[in-house]
Amino acid sequence: MNESIRLAVIGYGNLGKGAEKAILRHSDLSLTGIFTRRNPASLQTKAPAYALDSLSEFRSRIDVCLLCGGSASDLDRQGPAIVQWFNTVDSFDTHARIPAYFAVMDRAAQSSGHTAIISAGWDPGLFSLARVYGEAILPAGESLTFWGKGVSQGHSEAIRRIEGVRDAVQYTVPIEDAKMRFMAGEPVSAAPAERHRRVCYVVLEDGADPEDVRRRIVTMPHYFSGYDTAVHIVGAAELEHHRGMPHGGSVLRRGETSPGVVQSLSVNLTLDSNPEFTASVLVAAARAVHRLAARGVKGALTLLDVPPAYLSADDPAQLRETQL
Amino acid sequence: MNESIRLAVIGYGNLGKGAEKAILRHSDLSLTGIFTRRNPASLQTKAPAYALDSLSEFRSRIDVCLLCGGSASDLDRQGPAIVQWFNTVDSFDTHARIPAYFAVMDRAAQSSGHTAIISAGWDPGLFSLARVYGEAILPAGESLTFWGKGVSQGHSEAIRRIEGVRDAVQYTVPIEDAKMRFMAGEPVSAAPAERHRRVCYVVLEDGADPEDVRRRIVTMPHYFSGYDTAVHIVGAAELEHHRGMPHGGSVLRRGETSPGVVQSLSVNLTLDSNPEFTASVLVAAARAVHRLAARGVKGALTLLDVPPAYLSADDPAQLRETQL
Repeated sequence: MNESIRLAVIGYGNLGKGAEKAILRHSDLSLTGIFTRRNPASLQTKAPAYALDSLSEFRSRIDVCLLCGGSASDLDRQGPAIVQWFNTVDSFDTHARIPAYFAVMDRAAQSSGHTAIISAGWDPGLFSLARVYGEAILPAGESLTFWGKGVSQGHSEAIRRIEGVRDAVQYTVPIEDAKMRFMAGEPVSAAPAERHRRVCYVVLEDGADPEDVRRRIVTMPHYFSGYDTAVHIVGAAELEHHRGMPHGGSVLRRGETSPGVVQSLSVNLTLDSNPEFTASVLVAAARAVHRLAARGVKGALTLLDVPPAYLSADDPAQLRETQL
Repeated sequence: MNESIRLAVIGYGNLGKGAEKAILRHSDLSLTGIFTRRNPASLQTKAPAYALDSLSEFRSRIDVCLLCGGSASDLDRQGPAIVQWFNTVDSFDTHARIPAYFAVMDRAAQSSGHTAIISAGWDPGLFSLARVYGEAILPAGESLTFWGKGVSQGHSEAIRRIEGVRDAVQYTVPIEDAKMRFMAGEPVSAAPAERHRRVCYVVLEDGADPEDVRRRIVTMPHYFSGYDTAVHIVGAAELEHHRGMPHGGSVLRRGETSPGVVQSLSVNLTLDSNPEFTASVLVAAARAVHRLAARGVKGALTLLDVPPAYLSADDPAQLRETQL
């Protein structure tokens, strides 16, 4: 039995909580501790909790740090600082800023001799992998991404700002028929409104007019106008059933390999908990970081640069026997 | 503009024909020639055709050989012979014998200083990748593979052996409801008969009794007994509509990340032409072989060992900008 790979969780929001749970599912991984900017004694953790300021004292006890900062602004500061002392993995997900963040992390990791996987999760992450494999194999074709069914915080918030609304949750729902038409080689609009519909659960203030609220939602520019939008007026108790964080989506690729011969590939996720799944990808990526570092690979990488077998607990010979 | 990667296609059956077409779709790849055991002048190829015996004379003009032999027995002999002189990629697909074939190819490639990707295709290949990512990310869970809709040569042949049958084509069809139940976390039998149904198109000999033939098909042990089997008696002209080679399938993974929190992942293929798609995977893998060889990697690998970005025509910086 090899020694376990020792991980640390940095940040204890939804993602950090998911990482703590995910690590328990892997017998070859262990959790040294959770590091927080809050008072460690205030956290309800199973693993030991420590002040983030003390992290550098744990250099001999941590193989990889999982950066679970809740926002891009956390990672902008924490990533380059922590990779000076540790190997890291994060889920940096502001798509347009990934090249700049990669450059900063690569420079910091190269100079300290560490290894960092950035932007591990599902989008970016698994969906990026699906796009790269799909386009490499079917270069003459088209790709399309659908998101949902999942809660959109921005759209939920937009409804809450309407007068007469006490609370609301909005789901973005992909239109299955558009998926099927795309996979069958038929034309599908790239416009999100023709591929997604919106379903709203709304709790009204006392005395608010349901029809008026409904009209103001479905006509709201940018957010709902042009979409097939369903509005359900519900009681406060029913809205509690919508406090989960489900999400998911699909990446589709279709292409021709000869005239009229259509091949299609799809990757689909249906997630009861978006943060727990994202954390599960981070944890598997941490195993890869440890192995890459052990082989002398330094600097920043994404999942696109990592041999798939490096994420698995099994060795390549076992994988050839069981998975091929 | 870099020089193109120069490929050779070894064997000109369905897979080799698909490879010839697939190479045309990639601007960074070129086809030096097609090598055959038949009389080269007898082939209807676009690229130059040569006798397989002359292959070793082309060492300065080929970067990677695509081994498109039609059966495992071709590859058993051709793989180790050709990797003495060239980098190779193949779609060896006899699952149980992959570890042994890997060992033979690894030894031959290591000793000649070449690089070989074996078992590239969709199963083994893309489906193996889906299983490895799925299990690494969701270790507490279950996987299930569905095949089809696709033509099964073995089942078609079994029907043709029935007295009174002139010709037949059999499709294996996955039961969509079983997929949905699995993805929803419900119990699904691992027995293939509960996840697939069979659809048969049958042309009768003159005077044969349709009801008798139907009964003999649906009760046939191992092949059809226990399955939901539909038998369509058709004319010879209609059967010609079933001469394509469609196939496909799905790999599903579902797992819990905390009690009652179910996450699921699926990869689905819908292929108008099984050999043309398999060839398209081989061609993308050939690009990876060339790059691995250029970086000094020697020996045998599978797609599980190859960084996904190596399959793409784009460089990693482009991929970070466009796919993450």
